[in-house]
Amino acid sequence: MTTTDDDVRALAARARVASHDLALATRATKDAALHAMADALVAATDDVLAANADDVARAEDAGTPANVVDRLRLTDDRVAAMAQGLREVAGLPDPVGEVVRGSTLANGLELRQVRVPFGVVGMIYEARPNVTADAAGICLKAGSAVLLRGSASAASSNAAIIEVLREAVARAGLPADVVQLVPADSRDTVKALMRARGLVDVLIPRGGAGLIQSVVEESTVPVIETGVGNCHVYVDAAADPDQAVEVVLNAKTHRTSVCNAAESLLVHADLVDTLLPRLVTALQDAGVVVHGDETAARLPGVVPATDDDHAAEYLSMDISVAVVADLDAAVAHLRRFSSGHTEAILTRDQAAARRFVAAVDAAAVVVNASTRFTDGGEFGFGAEIGISTQKLHARGPMGLPEMTSTKYVVTGDGHVRP
Amino acid sequence: MTTTDDDVRALAARARVASHDLALATRATKDAALHAMADALVAATDDVLAANADDVARAEDAGTPANVVDRLRLTDDRVAAMAQGLREVAGLPDPVGEVVRGSTLANGLELRQVRVPFGVVGMIYEARPNVTADAAGICLKAGSAVLLRGSASAASSNAAIIEVLREAVARAGLPADVVQLVPADSRDTVKALMRARGLVDVLIPRGGAGLIQSVVEESTVPVIETGVGNCHVYVDAAADPDQAVEVVLNAKTHRTSVCNAAESLLVHADLVDTLLPRLVTALQDAGVVVHGDETAARLPGVVPATDDDHAAEYLSMDISVAVVADLDAAVAHLRRFSSGHTEAILTRDQAAARRFVAAVDAAAVVVNASTRFTDGGEFGFGAEIGISTQKLHARGPMGLPEMTSTKYVVTGDGHVRP
Repeated sequence: MTTTDDDVRALAARARVASHDLALATRATKDAALHAMADALVAATDDVLAANADDVARAEDAGTPANVVDRLRLTDDRVAAMAQGLREVAGLPDPVGEVVRGSTLANGLELRQVRVPFGVVGMIYEARPNVTADAAGICLKAGSAVLLRGSASAASSNAAIIEVLREAVARAGLPADVVQLVPADSRDTVKALMRARGLVDVLIPRGGAGLIQSVVEESTVPVIETGVGNCHVYVDAAADPDQAVEVVLNAKTHRTSVCNAAESLLVHADLVDTLLPRLVTALQDAGVVVHGDETAARLPGVVPATDDDHAAEYLSMDISVAVVADLDAAVAHLRRFSSGHTEAILTRDQAAARRFVAAVDAAAVVVNASTRFTDGGEFGFGAEIGISTQKLHARGPMGLPEMTSTKYVVTGDGHVRP
Repeated sequence: MTTTDDDVRALAARARVASHDLALATRATKDAALHAMADALVAATDDVLAANADDVARAEDAGTPANVVDRLRLTDDRVAAMAQGLREVAGLPDPVGEVVRGSTLANGLELRQVRVPFGVVGMIYEARPNVTADAAGICLKAGSAVLLRGSASAASSNAAIIEVLREAVARAGLPADVVQLVPADSRDTVKALMRARGLVDVLIPRGGAGLIQSVVEESTVPVIETGVGNCHVYVDAAADPDQAVEVVLNAKTHRTSVCNAAESLLVHADLVDTLLPRLVTALQDAGVVVHGDETAARLPGVVPATDDDHAAEYLSMDISVAVVADLDAAVAHLRRFSSGHTEAILTRDQAAARRFVAAVDAAAVVVNASTRFTDGGEFGFGAEIGISTQKLHARGPMGLPEMTSTKYVVTGDGHVRP
């Protein structure tokens, strides 16, 4: 028996009701719930690991690649890290109630713009079960109920984690329905979330490009698009050569499976005979397959690149390389191929840096540093629900404030419009 | 011959190219363009009025209601007001480049979150040709190209206004394509805008509930939903009676055709025999048709109300009235019927005011004042592109800052992730 549209709408309606109490909860109550959730997770480690073992066994039986199984697998340490994440969220300031701006109008009316919870958030995500606890914690602190729709492959782990969290939330005096599991037994439950306009306030898809694309295109619920990163490093004519090699290697090879890893390298034409060969050799020595445009492909071992390579988010030890005539050509290349995540320039030329920062349209523009810094933790946000690559509402790493809306509060003494 | 999907995509692609120059324009250039636009509109008043006379004649021939024809009609004064609006936008601070937040991270990286233009904005709007100049001016100041898709009934007026504006923009040294008319010859051009994901960054529908609903549901381009207002005034047991009568009359009758007019009145049960009859009589004396629930309908002249009445945005001299047991019942009624625009409480009880403000989920929550104050002009924003009733990105009156996105600028000295 699969979950129907009506079942998902019923979950969302329960979340809506629960969200009303949560929206009025004090920070003290929410933080107590987060600590209770953390304690309960640690106490239930054995149950969570047993449920996870089922998921892992099923994945292995199905011939799932080892790296995917690894992301699915929980350990004592990973459960402890989930609990620690919840405690850290408890330590962050409460975004709800923050006065974003305020003034007294000419007629004496007091105007305040105040952060308020979204209400009900839908998370659609793949593989990693730690997202379940992270998202539940962030949404709870931001005052919103959350509907968690993980992947079928993590169904047992997610169910076990959510059961533990719900009990802890209830013990802390908040409605258990602020955290709910949306069954992953069919893709119809994703579709039902996308159609639950009015019941769900915002959908956040986290996962591969295919998932995000389908949610963005089909959802009638407002979506915050996350995380596809075809991040570029542009090595300007005035780049420091040693720094360029170090930063390009870090951006590409520090961790390849993440959205802020570099996937494309742009090199100023002046450097074709000097820094370009050095960069390519350094990448190849580190085990990276270099896919080069016509110029770069003349170098030994470089595979010819197509437009698909320039557009690709490899998430692997591959990089595309293009030689550009100048900074404007680099910007033009980015306008064609950037996914709007993170674009870096390496240069000692202040004017070049200023022009690149002004002209490039992305969530993060980086000067003389690795693309790997675009991250809520690195930015000091303390918690991150994802990295938005859209221009509405939130752009870049999303912390607690980005997980709220606002409302205007207008206070008078019987004021009327003259 | 009607405009095809490809035609609209070609307009959007031209807007995209033009937006790159506009994004880099200084405030001085943009303000000069706004003044040139204002001067050109005044100089071309006769041409604009002649084009408008065609629209008005067509509308009258088609038997359009007089109040709609009136909104369509331009006069010397209305053209002068459009020009004045452009000059006022020139006088406002430039939102682009504003540093929203910034810090130096522990590793020495400098982090700044900076306001940047959206890129390309699509406006879909009805009837009033003054929106054409307003939207063009606000988008230009906010650094975005705009695609203006007005109603077929105002096609001649909009074409004339846009031609004047484009020439002025070009004379000021910016690409004329930052302001473009999307033909209103078929509804397909609206559909084409809604499908232009990647070419158009945000769509803003302004008009009736039907238009907004269809754009919100069908668009793959992110939408900022505007303006449907079923605004309530809740008269608490502790309301000042004289003030309540004055505020309710103002909220309902000051101007009935606007989204911040009151459409629904909630009255605390304790006031059934005292203030309720007085409020109903005052409304009726002012010419308002009162649609009451079972209790209110016992009063003379009150028409029985259905759920449709409680949900209605009348935009006319009608109001629905419901008697509620207490503040929580008022909140429950709002959760069912509020359109999330503006909800007001009238009370001398501080605890009641606090509870109402916290529990009611709307763009604006008003204490002891008329709903009519939810307005960019009243809030001191200087210019307003519409009133958002959604929770993502912007909520309430949208001024220049709400018409921008942000990006993070990260600056280092060759920083890499350890």
